[in-house]
Amino acid sequence: MNNQNLMKALMAPNSIAILGASSRPESIGGRPIKFLKAYGYQGAIYPINPKYETIQGLPCYRDISSIPQKADLLIIITKPDSILQAMQDAKARGIQAVMIITSGFSESGDDGKKLEAALINYANANDMLVMGPNCQGFVNFDKKVTATFTGALSRGNLQQGNICLISQSGAMSGMLYAMAVDLGIGFSYLISGGNESIVTTSHFIDYAVDDDKTDAICVYMEGVKDAPLLKAAAQKAIERDKPIVAMKVGKSEAGSKAASSHTGALASSDAIVDSFMQQSGILRVETTDDLFDAMKVFSNGKRAGGNRIGVVSISGGAGVVMADACDKYQMTLPKLSDETERELSANIPVFGSPHNPVDLTAQVLTAYEKFYHCIEAVAADDSVDAVVIFIGLLEHLKDNLLKAIEDLNGVTQKPILVTWLAATPEIKSWFYDKQIPLFEDSDRCIYGTSLLWRYTALKREVMQVSETGGAALAASVYEMYKGTNGFLNEWDSKHMVSSAGIMTDSPAVAHDTAALKELAGTLHYPVAVKVLSRSILHKSDIGGVILNVTDEASLLSAYTTILDNVEANGLTSAFEGVIVSSMLPKGTEMIVGIKKDPLLGTAVVLGMGGTMVEILKDSVMQLIPIDKRNALKMIDSLKSKKMLYGYRDITRKDINALAEIIVRVSDLCMARPDIQEMDINPVFVYDEGEGAVAIDALIKLEV
Amino acid sequence: MNNQNLMKALMAPNSIAILGASSRPESIGGRPIKFLKAYGYQGAIYPINPKYETIQGLPCYRDISSIPQKADLLIIITKPDSILQAMQDAKARGIQAVMIITSGFSESGDDGKKLEAALINYANANDMLVMGPNCQGFVNFDKKVTATFTGALSRGNLQQGNICLISQSGAMSGMLYAMAVDLGIGFSYLISGGNESIVTTSHFIDYAVDDDKTDAICVYMEGVKDAPLLKAAAQKAIERDKPIVAMKVGKSEAGSKAASSHTGALASSDAIVDSFMQQSGILRVETTDDLFDAMKVFSNGKRAGGNRIGVVSISGGAGVVMADACDKYQMTLPKLSDETERELSANIPVFGSPHNPVDLTAQVLTAYEKFYHCIEAVAADDSVDAVVIFIGLLEHLKDNLLKAIEDLNGVTQKPILVTWLAATPEIKSWFYDKQIPLFEDSDRCIYGTSLLWRYTALKREVMQVSETGGAALAASVYEMYKGTNGFLNEWDSKHMVSSAGIMTDSPAVAHDTAALKELAGTLHYPVAVKVLSRSILHKSDIGGVILNVTDEASLLSAYTTILDNVEANGLTSAFEGVIVSSMLPKGTEMIVGIKKDPLLGTAVVLGMGGTMVEILKDSVMQLIPIDKRNALKMIDSLKSKKMLYGYRDITRKDINALAEIIVRVSDLCMARPDIQEMDINPVFVYDEGEGAVAIDALIKLEV
Repeated sequence: MNNQNLMKALMAPNSIAILGASSRPESIGGRPIKFLKAYGYQGAIYPINPKYETIQGLPCYRDISSIPQKADLLIIITKPDSILQAMQDAKARGIQAVMIITSGFSESGDDGKKLEAALINYANANDMLVMGPNCQGFVNFDKKVTATFTGALSRGNLQQGNICLISQSGAMSGMLYAMAVDLGIGFSYLISGGNESIVTTSHFIDYAVDDDKTDAICVYMEGVKDAPLLKAAAQKAIERDKPIVAMKVGKSEAGSKAASSHTGALASSDAIVDSFMQQSGILRVETTDDLFDAMKVFSNGKRAGGNRIGVVSISGGAGVVMADACDKYQMTLPKLSDETERELSANIPVFGSPHNPVDLTAQVLTAYEKFYHCIEAVAADDSVDAVVIFIGLLEHLKDNLLKAIEDLNGVTQKPILVTWLAATPEIKSWFYDKQIPLFEDSDRCIYGTSLLWRYTALKREVMQVSETGGAALAASVYEMYKGTNGFLNEWDSKHMVSSAGIMTDSPAVAHDTAALKELAGTLHYPVAVKVLSRSILHKSDIGGVILNVTDEASLLSAYTTILDNVEANGLTSAFEGVIVSSMLPKGTEMIVGIKKDPLLGTAVVLGMGGTMVEILKDSVMQLIPIDKRNALKMIDSLKSKKMLYGYRDITRKDINALAEIIVRVSDLCMARPDIQEMDINPVFVYDEGEGAVAIDALIKLEV
Repeated sequence: MNNQNLMKALMAPNSIAILGASSRPESIGGRPIKFLKAYGYQGAIYPINPKYETIQGLPCYRDISSIPQKADLLIIITKPDSILQAMQDAKARGIQAVMIITSGFSESGDDGKKLEAALINYANANDMLVMGPNCQGFVNFDKKVTATFTGALSRGNLQQGNICLISQSGAMSGMLYAMAVDLGIGFSYLISGGNESIVTTSHFIDYAVDDDKTDAICVYMEGVKDAPLLKAAAQKAIERDKPIVAMKVGKSEAGSKAASSHTGALASSDAIVDSFMQQSGILRVETTDDLFDAMKVFSNGKRAGGNRIGVVSISGGAGVVMADACDKYQMTLPKLSDETERELSANIPVFGSPHNPVDLTAQVLTAYEKFYHCIEAVAADDSVDAVVIFIGLLEHLKDNLLKAIEDLNGVTQKPILVTWLAATPEIKSWFYDKQIPLFEDSDRCIYGTSLLWRYTALKREVMQVSETGGAALAASVYEMYKGTNGFLNEWDSKHMVSSAGIMTDSPAVAHDTAALKELAGTLHYPVAVKVLSRSILHKSDIGGVILNVTDEASLLSAYTTILDNVEANGLTSAFEGVIVSSMLPKGTEMIVGIKKDPLLGTAVVLGMGGTMVEILKDSVMQLIPIDKRNALKMIDSLKSKKMLYGYRDITRKDINALAEIIVRVSDLCMARPDIQEMDINPVFVYDEGEGAVAIDALIKLEV
């Protein structure tokens, strides 16, 4: 039985056994059965509990071996120390998919960790799939599988729809579901996988992408587990046009501290998480309100092809708020075509406005035709990618208004989003039924529209990414410094960097005065002389750097001075000689380095050099592999990019050469995963066409 | 009858006459009467309409003169061209307070503008108070005065409370009210003044500050009218601890464009509006959601003394979100005292956490005592300024939870705010009744708490502002350049600047070569020679600047060169001679200038000089008067302030001297309101203790 079928047995079981079933419908062991019966699950249910003959009206079995047929899914709610035995019994009964609700594992101390490790080992050794432990479980809305004890289901509605909601926080999953239900959102799955010992959030997402009842996947995420699988699933989701939206918490330092103390998981730097989601095509949102807005707009299949919004409002005031919001969310209010404006003018009284944001005035709303013509005209305008309609109160006109909105929504491919302030419950449920996104705040409505556009843009991005030369490089540099570890000295670091095709100031080395004398004649003065050492990392701090050496004599004295300084600092044993390079003209100083994330991999960091920009912390980060296009985008996202693009008396620099360096650092790190640290600082970037050069470089290999 | 009593007659009338009263309860002329009767207004109501004997069961009068007694307030709903006559009749009947609902005035073309101008003239000439025209009217919830036609009142509830809501958008006023009602917010007044021909939003705010039924004032603002009155009212509000919260729309360029096309009003630069609100002590918010959150937290009288939040949550996940939100809204999660943590540990299971954000786990909530002890312990901790409680679902435990929250709220002075995800309607209304702020999103809850702290901080700010030397200066510089207008030349500009106590590079002038020869001997070389002219603004562009002149000979040739260049540019007539000053060592370049706002007055602009910072648009703005403390705060809010404070090899600069210059520019502009433009660029700021000098200055006086 392969993994895919196992996932199907877990997530869409035709029969369910419950070990630790309870006759109290409100207890954790009782709720799953209560829900399965209440919501009409059609498969077989086998309560297992030696203490009872029947449970909640169903025949109860003494142990796993005695259930009448092998169940697709076994739910376990018995004590932690009984789990391993239960796994063995399940195995014996031919059950391979298990969900463990029981807590008391890795989330609670060392004994729990041991138990969970044993559990994982057994499951892996026996091809068993385990959801949990310490999990809330899941709901399959189509098959009415309510394998969960969340109180949210006690409210008596299973609201089916096309959103798969996955929450890494058990408590939040039920709350988010209950709130979404009140907002008229329907679901295909509600999933909370607890400790994710075997089946991770990435597995659930991958499963949901394949699920034909799911059109969009929303995730409440505390940490990324199994990044490669998540990335692959996300890629598949992009191809199938199924948005994945993640509310990744722990954004701030305080937050990620709280997160790791809560989940015990390593927290990744937020900038790297952002880069990971960008590259994977996962749409990131910040708050639960954001997440609900995403559910609203993506449960409706329409997409925005651009960021241009046509606003039709009944109040000039609201138009102003919309304009502010567009500015906030990088959306625009395009000028409508003259034809459109003429058509609008024909329907709008003089104290309204035919210009976007269009002010219909309440008067127009009294007649279906006038209102329909206006919104239809805006929707038909080629300069508009999405239509936002603003209404407030006016429940006495709702019949006309709703009919017009429904009719337009039926004929246009463009998304129609509505802000209706102080809408009555009746009006709200109308929108819920029609799956036309409804908002009660103009700002939120524009935000929702921006999500539609952000997804389109993200999708185009991900589909464009091209292959990089990482593989090609591997051979050439893989053998280099094999076996060595720790820091490389400047000479070796630059050697490795240039082997990746990055231009350096092509230095020379001398390990002693004799060698230096030989070298002296061959140099282009003035030169810079620096101490060569794999252990002296801050050369200038100990007087290990002498610049502007103009002739042979001063070259030799420079050597002595440096050696003296090294000895004065008691570092004689670290002295490997000196590295000499021609003084190059100063270019714009940049820093190119890397940052390794334990979960998400290696990111290239690009920063402006020089004090002024250090002050402004002007740097950007992107996970490898990085192609040329993305390297250029990194440069373009620097605050002070005009220093490179040119401004006033500042000439344009060789952007292309800098981008090349970024790509080659990415390639080098792909080829040499053993590179732990790399810092090329400074890189001198010269005027356009004149290239960029690594002036200093430091590399540390895996120890 | 003085203005205050007139406002009382308008806003709390004991008798109301309605001109243009209608027998159709749903028409604009019918609704006010319908509402007055339905909500139990106790005063006399006099419908006026020649066509009827009775209207909606009340005796109807043929004209104003025939009503049985002089009414406090006359509401007018008749045609625009009938208004002036109506005003005269009102005057004749002794009525001085009039509200005009009728539209068709300055909002709709030139004829309307004329009508409104005539209306204003008549009202002012006869001491009459006019609300509107083109207004929705107002509601006085205590006296049940429903002088409005907003559809929001058709929903059949008049929710009384302590919030005064003023909306400059008629449409928005009703919608905001209806939505707030659903959030359990109660009101003292609901006001929308339309064109504000005579009574402006500033008047309403001033009135509300004095109103003893009002504890907080919330304003939906499109533009500031009557800034001085608003500032005075805000000052009074601060003294009485009545927060004024304004959602000022038109923040973005697009937004303010939309705003002025909608209101026809001049839009102020948003940075200046910010500065105005800061100085006045008005709390600015962005979205309608923000405004509702403000109503929630300020309808409850408690205040936060600081920004330190103690979070008590039932889910570790929620704690993470709270931590993120604190970071976002500049709030903090302090470490709790060991004693508090011990107390919490005694009640919390091991898989919870006694550290802020505290994770109680759902288990603790089952017993009143445990839960109460935990929240009480956090509230009692001195390191906490406000307590935020997070709960979700759990309606079956509500009795214990609500009782504990109510009990704590009763004994602690600190604000208690609650996030209850997926709260049932019953739970919601409990919180509404108790006026304990309830939120359905953690992010919003932390935002609400931050408003409490922002208000406290703002209040302290406003109360601290000290007097500036503006007055003192007046005498010394007021007479200077009396009668002159337009641009002053550099010599005169620097003269005026230094008269305000700002150090300049103390230049000398020569109007001809003879004078220059005399001067030559007295100079400290090298010097800079610049053309002197009130009409040549960009001296260097025409070769009017020569630097590093080292001796008398080159001084004279510099003169000739400059004169030649001036002639070559056909500007001979503009030539007034040359201005000569010693070359000063380069300091950190700053720019100090002013920006005049038509509505809000003069602001001082402080910016970093030099290209790098131009690129980053690093400048701040503040309205005058500016005292030393605020000048220092301006400097502190520069992105690249470390350039002045010192960083790495950058030495600390003379912050104090720079702040002095800002204060003196402010003083100068207070003393000389005729200064239209001023640009001191560059100012050289030297190392600490070594001062700051104006190297160039340009002033333009009123033309």
